[in-house]
Amino acid sequence: MAAAVWHGRRDIRTEDVPEPPPPPEGQVKVKVAWCGICGTDLHEYLGGPLYVPVDEPHPLTGVQAPVILGHEMSGDVVEVGPGVTRVKVGDRVALCPIIGCLECRWCKSGLMGLCPNIAFLGISWHGGGFAQYVNVHDYMCYQLPPEVSYEVGALVEPFAATYRAVKRTEVQPEETVAIVGTGPIGLMALQSAHIHGARRVVAVEAAAKRQELARECGATAVIDPAKQDPVAAIRDMTDGEGADVVIECAGVEATGILAGRMARRQGRIMVMGVFEEPAPLDYTDVVYGEKTIMGSMGGYGVFDEAIQAMAEGKLAGEILITGRIGLDNFLRDGLEAVIKHKEDNVKILVSPD
Amino acid sequence: MAAAVWHGRRDIRTEDVPEPPPPPEGQVKVKVAWCGICGTDLHEYLGGPLYVPVDEPHPLTGVQAPVILGHEMSGDVVEVGPGVTRVKVGDRVALCPIIGCLECRWCKSGLMGLCPNIAFLGISWHGGGFAQYVNVHDYMCYQLPPEVSYEVGALVEPFAATYRAVKRTEVQPEETVAIVGTGPIGLMALQSAHIHGARRVVAVEAAAKRQELARECGATAVIDPAKQDPVAAIRDMTDGEGADVVIECAGVEATGILAGRMARRQGRIMVMGVFEEPAPLDYTDVVYGEKTIMGSMGGYGVFDEAIQAMAEGKLAGEILITGRIGLDNFLRDGLEAVIKHKEDNVKILVSPD
Repeated sequence: MAAAVWHGRRDIRTEDVPEPPPPPEGQVKVKVAWCGICGTDLHEYLGGPLYVPVDEPHPLTGVQAPVILGHEMSGDVVEVGPGVTRVKVGDRVALCPIIGCLECRWCKSGLMGLCPNIAFLGISWHGGGFAQYVNVHDYMCYQLPPEVSYEVGALVEPFAATYRAVKRTEVQPEETVAIVGTGPIGLMALQSAHIHGARRVVAVEAAAKRQELARECGATAVIDPAKQDPVAAIRDMTDGEGADVVIECAGVEATGILAGRMARRQGRIMVMGVFEEPAPLDYTDVVYGEKTIMGSMGGYGVFDEAIQAMAEGKLAGEILITGRIGLDNFLRDGLEAVIKHKEDNVKILVSPD
Repeated sequence: MAAAVWHGRRDIRTEDVPEPPPPPEGQVKVKVAWCGICGTDLHEYLGGPLYVPVDEPHPLTGVQAPVILGHEMSGDVVEVGPGVTRVKVGDRVALCPIIGCLECRWCKSGLMGLCPNIAFLGISWHGGGFAQYVNVHDYMCYQLPPEVSYEVGALVEPFAATYRAVKRTEVQPEETVAIVGTGPIGLMALQSAHIHGARRVVAVEAAAKRQELARECGATAVIDPAKQDPVAAIRDMTDGEGADVVIECAGVEATGILAGRMARRQGRIMVMGVFEEPAPLDYTDVVYGEKTIMGSMGGYGVFDEAIQAMAEGKLAGEILITGRIGLDNFLRDGLEAVIKHKEDNVKILVSPD
């Protein structure tokens, strides 16, 4: 079958690989419908290996590069291994990419995303979504209701990550949320904030195309950091206070400090951006403002809630899909297109057919 | 009367100033017994003005440099203004240095430390503790029980700040707390962690003298960062997990990242160090570990609890007092001594008599 395989930095090849064997105990074989290109894939391409195991096999899965990429996927269950009761052949599913040891205190307490030996579909697993088929643990599968298409189903994973992050901020109905950076994650976080009942959701974004998308996704206001000081602007909108909650979705040098300063006294800052290396924080602002900075790892634990919200039509998913490509031109029309035309692309989906 | 007056960076003079007038409504006159030199005083001396109002009068108090320094003080109420019922002449008191507008939503909800127009005794107020007398609002006064001496009473303010910070981390009895940096604040945070019931309190400190003090203050273990990687060391002590709570008390370039990394998954990091400028944070570690970074501003709201703990003998305060000087040689034996012999000095107290 065809698959996009990571061999090294700047070395991803669409090539022919063996189809997965019949799924072993507790696993199912999924025929991939669509799989989204994620920022993580880009980071592995441009700056990797970050999470792909290269020097030694992954302690939990035994996987080592080369690996098939892709972890934001939807598809059909086409075969089930022994002992599987959670799903059956023919089920339409989205996948949670997190693989835990199931034995540590984190896995046992429902916090699989914190497993010390965590592995990921499409990074440190025996397959990924940029392929025609993949075997996965049955617990990774979440049923898609008929209202959720395969295409939007490929958005479940990143949407669930934003849903979980916003949920962890405990946003209240009277509160104002600021979203710093409205790429794919920012645009979904924006909608998650609305779904969690925020009164106002203000986007901070420099790119015109993305400002427009932020408005289409329900931004109450959009701050252009090239034209306004975002800290002054958010204070103007909030009686001088600042945002109750700030979701940092950019992950660049300046946005950590910015997100902190945009928050009001005792405000909460949730970090979702992928920072390639440590970046500055204004610690004094955190101390004097008694602010709280938080992290949230993936969407595990809220997939059902996120899918339910999608089934109820609460996520404008279609407008986030800005490209649909095949595996043939994965590099040129996928990764390279996102790199070259970052502002025009939100989510590019890949179909292996 | 004699007072230590901040005129500018590296320009602090002990000089003769007028004694405060009879206290106006709601204020009392306090005769200073002892006042501790705080890191903030040092920062104003070496790198100020940080919080001293210079270019325009303070919006709440109208105060402008030169100002009398000193905000960690104990003394006696010697005169009360009209309408004062909280204290009476002859009361032994410690002072909370925070002055709020009493009208904003923060002041009204008991969070005076977050008042947008906050002022501080000995920084942006009409007087300070490095003087023989000072007029203060009655709400700033907290009675010292007989068990707490004037000297230890001068430690109430910094101790309350650590008490509040540790309380905000919600440390649990089975938990391990790491203290990064055991200067005056670190040594009090260490003891606050024990008072709040932490099972183990591990200090990270490079200076031999302070390592010894950390042990005297009850450190379960001391990690020397010059000899061991503190992240590896704390993991060794905690079954590979990391500290449940980390209290950052150093405020230097490397300790923000270090404090974050020393925390376990879903651990809490409380920042108490005074960072002169933004410093790096490992945001990815915060995200993947779902860690929480918090700030705490001063000791307001817990002065009574802190004083009660001191009255019960729970704070080893005497060993933190490493110097007692007069106002005459404030600069040479106070500020300069702390700068030149940082490791040998914890808390130097100043008596105006």
